[in-house]
Amino acid sequence: MAQQNIYDNEIFFAGYKKIRENQVNANNLFEIPALFSMMPNLKDKTILDLGCGFGEHCKGFVERGAKKVIGIDISEKMLEIAKQENTDSKITYINMPMENIFELTEKFDIVISSLAFHYVEDFAGVVKNVYNLLNENGAFIFSQENPLCTCHSGGQRWTKDENGNKLYLNLSNYGIEGERESTWFVDNVKKYHRTFSSIVNTLIEVGFSINKMIEPLPTEEILSQYPDYKDLFHKPDFLLVKCTK
Amino acid sequence: MAQQNIYDNEIFFAGYKKIRENQVNANNLFEIPALFSMMPNLKDKTILDLGCGFGEHCKGFVERGAKKVIGIDISEKMLEIAKQENTDSKITYINMPMENIFELTEKFDIVISSLAFHYVEDFAGVVKNVYNLLNENGAFIFSQENPLCTCHSGGQRWTKDENGNKLYLNLSNYGIEGERESTWFVDNVKKYHRTFSSIVNTLIEVGFSINKMIEPLPTEEILSQYPDYKDLFHKPDFLLVKCTK
Repeated sequence: MAQQNIYDNEIFFAGYKKIRENQVNANNLFEIPALFSMMPNLKDKTILDLGCGFGEHCKGFVERGAKKVIGIDISEKMLEIAKQENTDSKITYINMPMENIFELTEKFDIVISSLAFHYVEDFAGVVKNVYNLLNENGAFIFSQENPLCTCHSGGQRWTKDENGNKLYLNLSNYGIEGERESTWFVDNVKKYHRTFSSIVNTLIEVGFSINKMIEPLPTEEILSQYPDYKDLFHKPDFLLVKCTK
Repeated sequence: MAQQNIYDNEIFFAGYKKIRENQVNANNLFEIPALFSMMPNLKDKTILDLGCGFGEHCKGFVERGAKKVIGIDISEKMLEIAKQENTDSKITYINMPMENIFELTEKFDIVISSLAFHYVEDFAGVVKNVYNLLNENGAFIFSQENPLCTCHSGGQRWTKDENGNKLYLNLSNYGIEGERESTWFVDNVKKYHRTFSSIVNTLIEVGFSINKMIEPLPTEEILSQYPDYKDLFHKPDFLLVKCTK
């Protein structure tokens, strides 16, 4: 099973970096607040971040009192930025695909992953390894693209009216799990679709207890500033899950 | 909060009875097998069935060894059929809306509900009452219309090609929970939409542990006989949940 390292593609990397530099994006408005809302008190906690990217979350965990943070990412380019911009004596960055975390020799209080699992083919395998790496009662908190997004199988994603307003999400193949090819900066970005029930069942079968799920939606305040985000009421972009060992 | 008793509407009742008399329907092919696959061994168990309708499930539980079954339904007409067709000394049918189950004075090993909750406005209230009526380690197993169905807010449900094949589900307002009016035999059938995450969170907040979720899909065998059910790969009709006190 090949691991995908699209973030080391130069064109992809440049495009991704640019949108993340714009502070008004769906990650900052919806995904990050939801992710941190699920976090327990981080004081003196040890944390593993799967697909840590630029390391902003790793830095955030240290600022919230974490004792030790390990951030892993398959992309050397992402970790170069992490080491420049989000360095700290309590953070260690390791260049490693998340499929290989069984190589780690210590255990953690919290494992998190932000918007990386939809690139991973063997979700069940990663979940098993996370379970083994967690201390008893440890928390596993992750976000991914919402299954209503990952199911997309080509064609127009939306039906729009004559003024370009989004009327319907063109939903297809929700029940067919597996690989999807998409274009995001470059062609052939591979993502993997799993249904809501499949995600939940995989976690439970490995031994986790589900604590909470969030599909973030815009608040009135966000809508008043950025009215285009009303389309999230048709299709939330993200799914977040908190579960406990 | 008014309780809806659409099944006592004569036109609705006649239409519903007719489709259920046809043995080839989505309930028989998908929902019932999934529901029974979630059942523990029923030997000597006490069971409460919320929205028991014609009582087929109640009879099925007794046939599988249940010691005592109480079936409640808001519709007198449905219970008349239940008492004619699915009577047994171990089954008691009670004409009662499921919002009133707090009036029951005994506890149960299993509470089930088949395709009734999408008619219920106060899901959290029902879940709390179910929790209180269950013995320790008791199981709560239910099916409902899939959230990809209940979110439907009017307009054409599908985009079809020139030959009438379903290309896309026209998904809208998934993120907006609450009442939907639909036409099924009669106008103004009220259903209530809840998102996947909202259903899960309600169960967890009341104290349940989630054990399993199923969104049933057709097998190869079913597809070879009834190829139109391939559309379920775009949109599963049902969601089933098993959880434990």
